Amino acid sequence: MPATPETQKTIALVVRHNTAGIDQPVQAIVDFLRVGGYRVVFEQETAVHVQVAGVDAMDVDAIGELAELVIVMGGDGTMLGVARQLARYKVPLIGINQGRLGFMTDIPIDRMLPALAEILSGKARAEERTLLEARLVRDGKEIHCSVAVNDVVVARGSGAGMAELKVTVDGAFMYNQRSDGLIVSTPTGSTAYALSAGGPLLHPTLAGIVLVPIAPHALSNRPIVVPDTSDIVVEIMNGRDISVNFDMQTFTSLQHGDQIMISRSPNTITFLHPEGWSYYHTLREKLHWNEYPSSDGKLK
Amino acid sequence: MPATPETQKTIALVVRHNTAGIDQPVQAIVDFLRVGGYRVVFEQETAVHVQVAGVDAMDVDAIGELAELVIVMGGDGTMLGVARQLARYKVPLIGINQGRLGFMTDIPIDRMLPALAEILSGKARAEERTLLEARLVRDGKEIHCSVAVNDVVVARGSGAGMAELKVTVDGAFMYNQRSDGLIVSTPTGSTAYALSAGGPLLHPTLAGIVLVPIAPHALSNRPIVVPDTSDIVVEIMNGRDISVNFDMQTFTSLQHGDQIMISRSPNTITFLHPEGWSYYHTLREKLHWNEYPSSDGKLK
Amino acid sequence: MPATPETQKTIALVVRHNTAGIDQPVQAIVDFLRVGGYRVVFEQETAVHVQVAGVDAMDVDAIGELAELVIVMGGDGTMLGVARQLARYKVPLIGINQGRLGFMTDIPIDRMLPALAEILSGKARAEERTLLEARLVRDGKEIHCSVAVNDVVVARGSGAGMAELKVTVDGAFMYNQRSDGLIVSTPTGSTAYALSAGGPLLHPTLAGIVLVPIAPHALSNRPIVVPDTSDIVVEIMNGRDISVNFDMQTFTSLQHGDQIMISRSPNTITFLHPEGWSYYHTLREKLHWNEYPSSDGKLK
Amino acid sequence: MPATPETQKTIALVVRHNTAGIDQPVQAIVDFLRVGGYRVVFEQETAVHVQVAGVDAMDVDAIGELAELVIVMGGDGTMLGVARQLARYKVPLIGINQGRLGFMTDIPIDRMLPALAEILSGKARAEERTLLEARLVRDGKEIHCSVAVNDVVVARGSGAGMAELKVTVDGAFMYNQRSDGLIVSTPTGSTAYALSAGGPLLHPTLAGIVLVPIAPHALSNRPIVVPDTSDIVVEIMNGRDISVNFDMQTFTSLQHGDQIMISRSPNTITFLHPEGWSYYHTLREKLHWNEYPSSDGKLK
Repeated sequence: MPATPETQKTIALVVRHNTAGIDQPVQAIVDFLRVGGYRVVFEQETAVHVQVAGVDAMDVDAIGELAELVIVMGGDGTMLGVARQLARYKVPLIGINQGRLGFMTDIPIDRMLPALAEILSGKARAEERTLLEARLVRDGKEIHCSVAVNDVVVARGSGAGMAELKVTVDGAFMYNQRSDGLIVSTPTGSTAYALSAGGPLLHPTLAGIVLVPIAPHALSNRPIVVPDTSDIVVEIMNGRDISVNFDMQTFTSLQHGDQIMISRSPNTITFLHPEGWSYYHTLREKLHWNEYPSSDGKLK
Repeated sequence: MPATPETQKTIALVVRHNTAGIDQPVQAIVDFLRVGGYRVVFEQETAVHVQVAGVDAMDVDAIGELAELVIVMGGDGTMLGVARQLARYKVPLIGINQGRLGFMTDIPIDRMLPALAEILSGKARAEERTLLEARLVRDGKEIHCSVAVNDVVVARGSGAGMAELKVTVDGAFMYNQRSDGLIVSTPTGSTAYALSAGGPLLHPTLAGIVLVPIAPHALSNRPIVVPDTSDIVVEIMNGRDISVNFDMQTFTSLQHGDQIMISRSPNTITFLHPEGWSYYHTLREKLHWNEYPSSDGKLK
Repeated sequence: MPATPETQKTIALVVRHNTAGIDQPVQAIVDFLRVGGYRVVFEQETAVHVQVAGVDAMDVDAIGELAELVIVMGGDGTMLGVARQLARYKVPLIGINQGRLGFMTDIPIDRMLPALAEILSGKARAEERTLLEARLVRDGKEIHCSVAVNDVVVARGSGAGMAELKVTVDGAFMYNQRSDGLIVSTPTGSTAYALSAGGPLLHPTLAGIVLVPIAPHALSNRPIVVPDTSDIVVEIMNGRDISVNFDMQTFTSLQHGDQIMISRSPNTITFLHPEGWSYYHTLREKLHWNEYPSSDGKLK
Repeated sequence: MPATPETQKTIALVVRHNTAGIDQPVQAIVDFLRVGGYRVVFEQETAVHVQVAGVDAMDVDAIGELAELVIVMGGDGTMLGVARQLARYKVPLIGINQGRLGFMTDIPIDRMLPALAEILSGKARAEERTLLEARLVRDGKEIHCSVAVNDVVVARGSGAGMAELKVTVDGAFMYNQRSDGLIVSTPTGSTAYALSAGGPLLHPTLAGIVLVPIAPHALSNRPIVVPDTSDIVVEIMNGRDISVNFDMQTFTSLQHGDQIMISRSPNTITFLHPEGWSYYHTLREKLHWNEYPSSDGKLK
């Protein structure tokens, strides 16, 4: 007699679109989990594009309500999208990557079964990530609200002059910045766009938020890290075609006087890693920290 | 008997719009030049907004054909616009600035008459600046051509993902760059947008062009300076809402496969400075090189 | 009958050497505090060089034991030295600056009496700063121990090749870095040397420590901010003439295998500021955030 | 009948010390060149440590006088040392690298014979590099003179406070810079230490010299590229333990008032490359321009 839904734990699978040859590994995970006594469900869109039969589909909210664990197969982009939606449900996430490992999808597909076994047996290393909550306020009214795993980016249009942004932190005026834009980033986002714009790396457990200006007019406008308890307000003072991005979601046509109010979200994301996992190992891999421009060290 | 146009030298004045209290200094220059035997003309738009009577108006091309010298009153932005239009006429330019001095408008308004006297007496220091010529090629056909004093900038839209640009120099492949965009800048432009994006300063007499990536994905994508004899081709490989700016002129909606072909213009701009002028003095003033974050040097 | 020492509160004054014209303001502070019923003492060296009579001298440790408050007159360098020595006594500090204001010495001398009155009346804004504790370990034995307000810097000699440093955080290997050196900085130090080397600003209340490489060989070796609960170990792997600096105190001739073990000190420093004080205001002043390279914003 | 020395062309070999397994490839080159009719000689030190019999030894100056071509087997460091010594003799150089390719040693050892064949047959691509000449002047007298292929570096000692350096270019005052030091670099050096300190890349054919400050106190102290016809003077204004490095050669104990006078050397170095060689290809390889932090481009 099969386990009843009441006692059986549910694990959900989310698989990236258009991933050649993914059906077989998905089938292997499904079989592995079922043998372990778990109920397996597919996220709705995954159910459509993955050719594995006999698995129920469920929308993301139902997964959030019901699942004990969500396994994401894809890159950091796929994880980013799922994590944003699941943030309020506190369900932990595991990332399996078919290609080069990501910052959030750190289990290689050819080691996925032993890694899952290890994690499911309780030998997981849980890692919590903060999110940002951002509200767009116009004329005193909130007209948009969103959550960001990586960053909130206020930026000018490509054909427009510089944006002028007024930044206030906990009610204290920080600066009027003229630039291409401003990135407000979590530790998670510090390895993404903020890094390209010259920001520092923030360790995932650092209770901080970094503000990174993009091509600022004032050469002394450096990235600044503030406590993640800060209330940050970015107000549009000047500039045309200004938009705000919450991770990859864009809200365009900001007006002068619009305010983007940013603070840490009450929700967090939990990633589960196998025991040997190391954040610094991932950094070294991703940033080529062991590879030097010159091989022999003789140049200097 | 007044001097006939045949023997009289013509000097043109270009004055920035909306400059409060400018009429009186303009009148002073007009009087000063006429006393010196010069014919004075106003650029067409200047003639409309400046309240000084009895001065002929002329369009920029006529000024280019006829004038011995053009005096620009305004900031670097005003100079930039005039210089682009006059580049092919080889007429030298003088910049007078009412507010904080600019890189190109370096004569303070309260010293303008002695400075002009000095320059007109032949004690000028001529300084030649290179320009870029850029052609936009689509499907093998040139669909736009422009000149830039500062820079040619290829950039993504603010709500779009990264641009992917393929750069070729003198037929040799340099890189495929993923970034917010690429700035191709003259020495003149090296103190403008390129500087904000992390580029080096180029001395005006350096025979070089600098390529400065904007927030590049690869951390090793550094600014690179190539000889100004280089033929640079930037090809749009990927990305949405990509546009190209020639100084402040924008051409939007670039398509994949579009090529921007950039090379040094056969024309140059000549600025005239009073004898004591020093490029480094201007740099120090503009970049606050004599002011330090800590006053006493004790911190380190 | 005068107050007895038992009930009277003691305030100590530390004054920078060689400060022309400082005697008169010091006398004014002494008078002001005495009128307010405080006992005033001079730090020992201050007593020698300041020409104000009738004030007892006391060494720094006695001041730490006895004083309710220490007033430092000088620049950030003077404050840095005093703060290091007083850290374990928990006595709050006030900084008065005669010249350009510092990050830590933020009260201008011409406003010192009203500012002191405000602070002494209880309307002070207390601000706590973390310190680093660093131990130098050779062959398993601690051979030096020091405290740093700003930073611990491990650096190569000027004529030597690159240093190779192995960095471990909380027992996890971070990287082997080849560079001129590594700066491990508090939020307080983030506006000093770390900033010059390309580090981010850290808000004083951020619970973080930043590691900033100096001229690293690997271009992806970016500054990284870790929680201030981290145990950081820097081990000398290679290089000649390597030394370690604790603020401005130097320990030279490090050997291969030497380890510098760095963690947050259990002690902190408390600065008292007048009520209107703002960290961002100080930043704007010190970093010229309201001054732009071009005055008119027309260039871009 | 063998070719007489009068008509026979001489090719010299310089081989890096302590290169395991190098004897066999050296023998292969010697054989290859002799079959081609060349006389082969070893540089003096090479003759001592390489186990290949029957090859004459010659000191570097004699090689400079006599050889048509010098083949360097090793890394960029080996090439740097040889190139400096041979600069005045105008003999072209070829670099063969056993490990990861260098900027100057670009022929992989497993393709060395076909590459040599190609170059010797006249299908070489010659590339000329500029050098710096630097004179150290104390009290009006030149006390040291040296040549640099990469850079001239003026830097403070590791335990000392900031250096203050006064920089003059062609007699015009540039700035007083407070920093860890200043790198004056050729295009060749722009991929070495200058790059680590934040300098731009300079194409080898750019007629420029770049000045790169190391950890400058003023945040606006950016790298600046000047024409290579410039006469650059760096004067020691302040600081202890200051030294100057010419490539890897160090001159210590500079005094206040000492001047380092730097200009382009009248000599140049010529590298020979196989026909397909591309500078940008080398850059891409060395700087990982085709490798991105995230593999899938999904993060942004």
